[in-house]
Amino acid sequence: MIAQHVTLASIRAAAERIAPFVHRTPIVGSRQINELLGCEIEFKCENLQKVGAFKARGAHNAVFQLDDDAAHRGVATHSSGNHAAALALAARNRGIRACVVMPSNAPAVKKAAVAQYGAEITYCEPTLAARESALRRLQAETGAHVVHPYEDPDVISGQGTVALEIIEQSEARPPDIVIAPVGGGGLLAGISVAIDALKPSIEVIGSEPLGADDAFRSFHSGKLQPQLAPDTIADGLLTSLGAPNFELIRQHVDDIVTVSEPSIVTAMQWIWSRTKLIVEASAAVSLAAAISDPARFRGKRVVAVLTGGNVDFDRLPFASTP
Amino acid sequence: MIAQHVTLASIRAAAERIAPFVHRTPIVGSRQINELLGCEIEFKCENLQKVGAFKARGAHNAVFQLDDDAAHRGVATHSSGNHAAALALAARNRGIRACVVMPSNAPAVKKAAVAQYGAEITYCEPTLAARESALRRLQAETGAHVVHPYEDPDVISGQGTVALEIIEQSEARPPDIVIAPVGGGGLLAGISVAIDALKPSIEVIGSEPLGADDAFRSFHSGKLQPQLAPDTIADGLLTSLGAPNFELIRQHVDDIVTVSEPSIVTAMQWIWSRTKLIVEASAAVSLAAAISDPARFRGKRVVAVLTGGNVDFDRLPFASTP
Repeated sequence: MIAQHVTLASIRAAAERIAPFVHRTPIVGSRQINELLGCEIEFKCENLQKVGAFKARGAHNAVFQLDDDAAHRGVATHSSGNHAAALALAARNRGIRACVVMPSNAPAVKKAAVAQYGAEITYCEPTLAARESALRRLQAETGAHVVHPYEDPDVISGQGTVALEIIEQSEARPPDIVIAPVGGGGLLAGISVAIDALKPSIEVIGSEPLGADDAFRSFHSGKLQPQLAPDTIADGLLTSLGAPNFELIRQHVDDIVTVSEPSIVTAMQWIWSRTKLIVEASAAVSLAAAISDPARFRGKRVVAVLTGGNVDFDRLPFASTP
Repeated sequence: MIAQHVTLASIRAAAERIAPFVHRTPIVGSRQINELLGCEIEFKCENLQKVGAFKARGAHNAVFQLDDDAAHRGVATHSSGNHAAALALAARNRGIRACVVMPSNAPAVKKAAVAQYGAEITYCEPTLAARESALRRLQAETGAHVVHPYEDPDVISGQGTVALEIIEQSEARPPDIVIAPVGGGGLLAGISVAIDALKPSIEVIGSEPLGADDAFRSFHSGKLQPQLAPDTIADGLLTSLGAPNFELIRQHVDDIVTVSEPSIVTAMQWIWSRTKLIVEASAAVSLAAAISDPARFRGKRVVAVLTGGNVDFDRLPFASTP
């Protein structure tokens, strides 16, 4: 039912709705990376997006599609990551209240980011059950509209606006392939709907860490598989694929591939050192797909989505004191 | 004598000469940094320049102004840093030989960068005397044209093209102040000549680490002071101010200020986390000037030059394993 509400029309409406509040992010390339891979790969820089991640798109679309009555009661979510900051900013831009349930052990820097945008934070035990029950209580008390980080048609449509921009920005020379990381699947689902509608000749590939490969297993078995005990440095991709997201991905995505942890670290290092852009490990997962299987991409024009740039600088996977 | 050859005309000629080989780098801002400082500060991103530093400009100008006979004998320099890579790339682009004297203890990553651009490397003992004597030998053997990293009118004119772009890119709303780091002084001298000629109302300020403050002392005493035992994490600014550079800076720069090491680290962290751009410590010295004395910049429009982005990721000044 959610999936039916994600269409080219809903994505175009989202683009118009969020335009005043989010960046049209640049696409950049690196001749050195092209030479290393033997393909022409460019990066859609959602690390330069508001709050440092594509999540700003979906959150703004969800917040600004509310009617005034609903908006008046505020919005709520549970999250320890980029979605919380994005929802907090979107609520501030609309002038409404945002309540965020965060696990007590969330990194101080993330708590500070959410607080900085003016959200009210409720802390709970660091379990999914505690987070969900705290959110239900909050919702009952306030009547706030809950914005799920990826199982929400407005959120998926908002993330899909990334693809509209890719198509517009590469109009002169459209890519052969678009690669996006997949965690809960909101971004990949939204992108695939837009591209399948506008430029079906472009191949859409999801890239997923081997240590959190539920989308890969689901896609190739045709049946939604849960993610048990995920283990990857790509901490934005630990979540399980959402059911509506899976439905859209089955229809519109061409392939899902997995990448190893070393390939993610290599991709992150290449991007940092060659483009001088800071990306988080989850973002590097898209380039890791090309590094892992260069033959597949050789001679192709590729756009890889860099999903975010929020990094704890004291925990770099390639930092080591000599 | 060198100083007389650096004029608005020589800088404009440089801009035309190097245009096919270097990037017109973007200017970016951060609302968060503006809010923190109470001014409107933007960054001229020479970290996104070819070879990751403004040095590409001066090196290309020096290499492409040579007549064919001189070019045929190649170019040479001694350097352990960005100038060596820049000269190597410029020579490759012209299709001529580049010989670079490097100290044996130069970081492996810098040796690799210079080798990657096809320069011939001669290693020597890590002293200035050994470097200069190895370069003289090389020059005698090959007849190569020596390109000094900053005491060279073509190099200074090339670096000055940064200012032409700043003026063009901010035409609608010109800045009140331009800040650039100062080491040997090539960049600051070139910028100040162009701005003084085109927009003398813009204040040009040099920023220098307190631990390598020879330009500050020279500027304020009116007499060129040597830099003895410099000590700063801004490793691109360890060199002494050049004599012709000092002459130009005295005429065209409005002020030179010094910044502490903690302010450099803070500036680097702000840029990394807020703009998602990788800058080296030497580049952060320009923002450090605004952090150190916010009252001076309050309400002003400021452009700070980010000079480079070549960083050893295993030696971050703000990395610490928790």
